[in-house]
Amino acid sequence: MAPQYAPSLRSRLPPIAFLLETVFILFFVFYVDVSYVHSIRFYAEFQDVHVMVFMGFGFFSTFLVRYGFSSSGFSLLVAAMAVQWAIVVQTLLHLPYLGRMRLTIESLVFAEMSAASSLIAMGVVLGKTNPVHLLLMSLMEVAGFTLNHWLLQTLLKVKLQHSLMLLHIYGAFFGIMTSWTLGKGIEPRHEKEKSDRKMALFSLFGTLFLWMLWPSFNSLFFSTIAQINIICSTYLSMAVSAVTAIAISVLSNPRGKINMLHVQSGILAGGVAVGATMSTFPLPWVAMAVGLSAGIMSTLGSIYIKPLMQIVFKCHDTCSILSVYGIPGILGWFVRLFLQLANSDSTTV
Amino acid sequence: MAPQYAPSLRSRLPPIAFLLETVFILFFVFYVDVSYVHSIRFYAEFQDVHVMVFMGFGFFSTFLVRYGFSSSGFSLLVAAMAVQWAIVVQTLLHLPYLGRMRLTIESLVFAEMSAASSLIAMGVVLGKTNPVHLLLMSLMEVAGFTLNHWLLQTLLKVKLQHSLMLLHIYGAFFGIMTSWTLGKGIEPRHEKEKSDRKMALFSLFGTLFLWMLWPSFNSLFFSTIAQINIICSTYLSMAVSAVTAIAISVLSNPRGKINMLHVQSGILAGGVAVGATMSTFPLPWVAMAVGLSAGIMSTLGSIYIKPLMQIVFKCHDTCSILSVYGIPGILGWFVRLFLQLANSDSTTV
Amino acid sequence: MAPQYAPSLRSRLPPIAFLLETVFILFFVFYVDVSYVHSIRFYAEFQDVHVMVFMGFGFFSTFLVRYGFSSSGFSLLVAAMAVQWAIVVQTLLHLPYLGRMRLTIESLVFAEMSAASSLIAMGVVLGKTNPVHLLLMSLMEVAGFTLNHWLLQTLLKVKLQHSLMLLHIYGAFFGIMTSWTLGKGIEPRHEKEKSDRKMALFSLFGTLFLWMLWPSFNSLFFSTIAQINIICSTYLSMAVSAVTAIAISVLSNPRGKINMLHVQSGILAGGVAVGATMSTFPLPWVAMAVGLSAGIMSTLGSIYIKPLMQIVFKCHDTCSILSVYGIPGILGWFVRLFLQLANSDSTTV
Repeated sequence: MAPQYAPSLRSRLPPIAFLLETVFILFFVFYVDVSYVHSIRFYAEFQDVHVMVFMGFGFFSTFLVRYGFSSSGFSLLVAAMAVQWAIVVQTLLHLPYLGRMRLTIESLVFAEMSAASSLIAMGVVLGKTNPVHLLLMSLMEVAGFTLNHWLLQTLLKVKLQHSLMLLHIYGAFFGIMTSWTLGKGIEPRHEKEKSDRKMALFSLFGTLFLWMLWPSFNSLFFSTIAQINIICSTYLSMAVSAVTAIAISVLSNPRGKINMLHVQSGILAGGVAVGATMSTFPLPWVAMAVGLSAGIMSTLGSIYIKPLMQIVFKCHDTCSILSVYGIPGILGWFVRLFLQLANSDSTTV
Repeated sequence: MAPQYAPSLRSRLPPIAFLLETVFILFFVFYVDVSYVHSIRFYAEFQDVHVMVFMGFGFFSTFLVRYGFSSSGFSLLVAAMAVQWAIVVQTLLHLPYLGRMRLTIESLVFAEMSAASSLIAMGVVLGKTNPVHLLLMSLMEVAGFTLNHWLLQTLLKVKLQHSLMLLHIYGAFFGIMTSWTLGKGIEPRHEKEKSDRKMALFSLFGTLFLWMLWPSFNSLFFSTIAQINIICSTYLSMAVSAVTAIAISVLSNPRGKINMLHVQSGILAGGVAVGATMSTFPLPWVAMAVGLSAGIMSTLGSIYIKPLMQIVFKCHDTCSILSVYGIPGILGWFVRLFLQLANSDSTTV
Repeated sequence: MAPQYAPSLRSRLPPIAFLLETVFILFFVFYVDVSYVHSIRFYAEFQDVHVMVFMGFGFFSTFLVRYGFSSSGFSLLVAAMAVQWAIVVQTLLHLPYLGRMRLTIESLVFAEMSAASSLIAMGVVLGKTNPVHLLLMSLMEVAGFTLNHWLLQTLLKVKLQHSLMLLHIYGAFFGIMTSWTLGKGIEPRHEKEKSDRKMALFSLFGTLFLWMLWPSFNSLFFSTIAQINIICSTYLSMAVSAVTAIAISVLSNPRGKINMLHVQSGILAGGVAVGATMSTFPLPWVAMAVGLSAGIMSTLGSIYIKPLMQIVFKCHDTCSILSVYGIPGILGWFVRLFLQLANSDSTTV
């Protein structure tokens, strides 16, 4: 069965894409310049985030039989558009202060983080919307994320590295709200949920890139000494949540087999949860305990909460985004709050 | 149907490979040494180029059903041989000055670039020649590329980073000339052109590695301050050409679907085109405009020019190399010429 | 046919995993801390090893039709557990001196190397043991490797970078001894050996990551000047063994086709063999000659020795680990001995 959006898509996606590109280029003509002074220090970190966004988040959802190929294409389209749009929104917010925006590698890193956030949101609605909707949704998501980030930085003086870690929760809930709005009255479509083992291996490839490079993601914009602590903690937390995800997947399968989709949900949970706690510099064992709890909650979430959400709230979550990013993110913020209260008299780096 | 070259291949490829390896090792005994003085600064860039050559260019052509597996093997063979041969040719050209060649990481980077150039040429004739021919062709290509490069550097005093950027055009036209020479009287074989969706995903993986690491490729051998400009420009140009390639692919498909082969052709165009203009340090919007034009020309080229070439010139281009590397490369050199004329009185870094 | 271990697996793997994780976390509470003083210099190298262990060794054995999916899952489980266990064992050995272990990026690198060693051992018995056995075996392997390493460092004053290079041989022979112990009386099961071409491409992906990043692996913990020598030598050695592996694979196939499983065996041989000789700083041509010999021995080994071992010793080696890591490793140590004797009067860096 051919997708129903085919004829209209052909007439709508290309004009919108070319219109947006033209607007972006014109905007760049007047407002964006290159900075010649900044060091190249961030290039390796930028490359890690770049691989995570385009290889990791891009292939995260290729396990769906019906959407494997198109989802990798749509992710590429959405991410490539989102990074440009994120630079435009950043520039608009800084115009009153700076006149012209001077592009640095940090601005590209920030643009990539916004794109990551919109790819998370996209995972919720994948297979229920056409690419034009995905594109418009991601533009809204990036604008909201950048604005929210700017408000936190300007009004509440929150540091860049702390407010960035809201991206998982922001993306997950933006996606879930969109799906909930769209989803009223839609019947559960099991056919669209089918996954294929070979496609799941592509998906695992993408997820493994995310898993491997996550320490770079969490340590972005911190000082060099803090980075070592964060890299070690994130690494340990993710190792624990990988073991947890596999153990729970085996436990939940009547034949004791590993279900790669459960694993995919759980292995990132440790990194997401510990990311939010980074500014409190948790000890290794705290990071591991957070990884264990996040792994359990996330894997169980993708097994039990996803179908529940669909029945109770009529809200369908294609890639279990709530369990992969939402729940671990919230857990992380609670742990952070607790650690900050516990260490309120100790010094912070 | 078994490939027709099977029996002769078995008797020819291994002797040639072992003969060449023996010659290379003997050559290295007498003429190649290791340099102990140079810094490790280039290692990260070397790794990026290394991944691009073996993972990127190597898997670029795995989309062909009949050649997916063998093409990844042949690419590995050709690239591994080409890097050794490139060092031999470099050494031969430098012998009159230096006596023994002292191997540095820069020499390896240059050897990888030559191998990249020969893998581009190989993409044109893939499926029409046996591995022995591919191997000999790549040796000729690398020798020509290195010689051409040496002439430009020695006689015309062209800088290393500028003459390297000819590699796309050189590789593409070397391949096309070879295919044209071979191709007279060969009937178009549609069966050999069939692509498979799962194989196309492997191919997309390879292409994405190229796409992601291209900023390192374009900024090689430039000064640190220039690199930031080049990284930002290449990044933006490639984001625009990715959007363009997807949009044109949707437009050209009657059912509005994304054809991954068109995307593959178009997404690299921005990087290829902007690579040639790097020495003029284009502004971000110029890079984006170049990415847009290159994306349009390259994607349309792979849809319309490829069949035309086959009918008019009897020249078959298996992986649309003319559109992927040739056309964007030429576009880039025209833009460079224009920018140089426009900025002829301004300083260059 | 469902695997026979299914029912017991479900009841055993999760409790063991959770028990171990709880023990690890409690141990970390009391004995492991983070170091705030060390530089981030090793981060790029750590990332390379990280990708090699989880992407490279993890996907090395996905070519088996029956074990492709589960082997990637089991590898992830074993590696994630092994790195934590390696830190615990390291800490136990250092407790008498240091009280609390201070975690640095070097400790993570060392833990990854131990995990790599246990993944090599796992390749021998894959498909013949259930994940619980794999897990316990890997814990024993890591404990033995770390203890062995500690003894060499403490008693024989062997340098870290030299004793680490035993990991291939240690892993290979640990696996083979385990398989030999298990294997008595087991009939050869050809059905479990079947490989699939598409799965083989995943496997080649993983192997290529190992191949590309191997220069980082061999140059770990050496001084910066020594690293350039090692990177160049490893690179050349691996290029030669890639060509050799493909040539021998073509030679051994009656239809002159490349068998990716032979290639996989041979292409890493150069890196393994040259790794052991690194402390003698071989000249480029020596490294290439070592790569040639290792490639020939390893590829022939995987074609002829593997079936022989099964018939003569009743020892089954699923992924030809003896040929991939054992034989080249031993060759490397002989070459090292020879080079040390030859250069016994020259200075070492």
